[in-house]
Amino acid sequence: MQSLHTLQNLINEAIEEKRFNEKPAELYDPINYIMSLGGKRMRPVFLLMACDLFGGSVLSALDAAVGIEMFHNFTLMHDDIMDKAPIRRGKETVHVKWNENVAILSGDIMFVEAYKLMIKVEDNILRDVLKVFGDTAASVCQGQQIDMNYEQTDEVSVDEYLEMIRLKTAVLLAGALEIGSLIGNAGHENAQTMYQFGENLGIAFQLQDDILDVYGDPEKFGKQVGGDILSNKKTFLLIKALEDAGELDNEELSYWINAENPEPQTKIQSVTSIYNRLGIRQLAEQEMNRHAEKALQYLEALPVDADKKQILRRFAEDLLVREN
Amino acid sequence: MQSLHTLQNLINEAIEEKRFNEKPAELYDPINYIMSLGGKRMRPVFLLMACDLFGGSVLSALDAAVGIEMFHNFTLMHDDIMDKAPIRRGKETVHVKWNENVAILSGDIMFVEAYKLMIKVEDNILRDVLKVFGDTAASVCQGQQIDMNYEQTDEVSVDEYLEMIRLKTAVLLAGALEIGSLIGNAGHENAQTMYQFGENLGIAFQLQDDILDVYGDPEKFGKQVGGDILSNKKTFLLIKALEDAGELDNEELSYWINAENPEPQTKIQSVTSIYNRLGIRQLAEQEMNRHAEKALQYLEALPVDADKKQILRRFAEDLLVREN
Repeated sequence: MQSLHTLQNLINEAIEEKRFNEKPAELYDPINYIMSLGGKRMRPVFLLMACDLFGGSVLSALDAAVGIEMFHNFTLMHDDIMDKAPIRRGKETVHVKWNENVAILSGDIMFVEAYKLMIKVEDNILRDVLKVFGDTAASVCQGQQIDMNYEQTDEVSVDEYLEMIRLKTAVLLAGALEIGSLIGNAGHENAQTMYQFGENLGIAFQLQDDILDVYGDPEKFGKQVGGDILSNKKTFLLIKALEDAGELDNEELSYWINAENPEPQTKIQSVTSIYNRLGIRQLAEQEMNRHAEKALQYLEALPVDADKKQILRRFAEDLLVREN
Repeated sequence: MQSLHTLQNLINEAIEEKRFNEKPAELYDPINYIMSLGGKRMRPVFLLMACDLFGGSVLSALDAAVGIEMFHNFTLMHDDIMDKAPIRRGKETVHVKWNENVAILSGDIMFVEAYKLMIKVEDNILRDVLKVFGDTAASVCQGQQIDMNYEQTDEVSVDEYLEMIRLKTAVLLAGALEIGSLIGNAGHENAQTMYQFGENLGIAFQLQDDILDVYGDPEKFGKQVGGDILSNKKTFLLIKALEDAGELDNEELSYWINAENPEPQTKIQSVTSIYNRLGIRQLAEQEMNRHAEKALQYLEALPVDADKKQILRRFAEDLLVREN
């Protein structure tokens, strides 16, 4: 098995080599820019790990791995326009640094380039890989639309929220693992088990994201702690708090949600206090652990030596106890 | 050979059947909307004709034909955002009827759906079809970016303009013909000849579009005659006029290009008069005919019975003497 460090280096080098020099520059410079901003690269790393797990050559999976990261960054580029986000990974977003039109069209061509990388797999799995990739891409778009819809409604249940993050976040991790498995000649059944592993891990990962946004260490988190609270983002924590709150807490929550120009730190502290009273952090961690355990059960079920699974398990566990 | 009428009916029915009922509605309603607005459907018709020409079953090419039309409409949906266009085919554009975010994300998922339709071709041509489709899609994006760049510069040569319309318009027609040929088992060489036929035809088609925008019959054209003149769009006609004009005409052209809030009909009539003095319509028609003839030479060169080519030739010729 290849080490995490080796795989990350492979990915980083492959992304570096995939710099575009094509014209027009307005179209390709933003791709080079967003791809150079880094990030955890967890989707391509998982793709390579899945291939490696079944004895496939990670080099044969490298194009698809870069393709998954390219697709992920395309969705970020378009999401940032839709969310009017000024900052991504500490730097200006593409639609701010250039303009919206550039971000739309550069995103479109990133999607083309992602497909071009995907079709480099062997003939015998080409159709299967493209089917997984297409279904995954459609789910991610659906999840983003549902997420935007949730901004306009007060009535989002926990189940609806979990389904949204499944589509928006988890399915891509799952798709990356399934594609990596197919490239590693895992066969359909094992590849689908890996998909289930990824889907549950992805939901757990997003729940951890929700928790960190409120309870993360400001010095390690990398973003403003409390950002979700300030923007009234309907995360698991807020939805669960609204569900569980008694009359008084509900009134206070509503007050802060509807407050115009509240003092930021006061709003964050007040809402966090309500979460604390209701034990929301523990409930979120329970939900996260439920999905993490389910994920690991799928991993256990695979007919592969336990020590080969170790690197995947460790990478998954690291992602769930991370601080940023 | 199938008649034009039969092929158009097949396409229209297949598009009608491909209506989406998936959720969320904000994502899929705009797809159904834009696909129902009609248009010439010339790209899918050409795709089916190409398949038919080489003895392939047009039914086996129907998914790819709808896929090409889906891709084309995705580019229109995104282009309309970038161009801030309020009207498409006489109806509100998607970003006006819904909003920009919906138009971005619905467009993205149309692109996914186009790929999903494309991968329904047979195994033996899957990779080739996807290669043509990916290269085509990248060219269309490049062409759109170059077109937007040309709005910001005064120095566009005729050759640069022809290269831009090749990428933005002609390549997709060419790609549709190549893919249809591959599905019809034409083999690589013939499929590439069909690509050349389409590329030249597509350039001729766009030049005819430029001419119609100035010289079309207002009752048949469907859009405002003179729209390109009003918006100072750098078409073949304007670029050529700026190139050929003597000092006086150049001064008058510059005056109208820089005029703030000119009376529309006066501007249109004045610029058209300059074009007339310089014989620009004839020069544009010469350039169009040069590409049309080149296109037909490629068609001639194909090792297929002449009477089988008749329907393709007639459809091509009809597009070049059209009035809207």
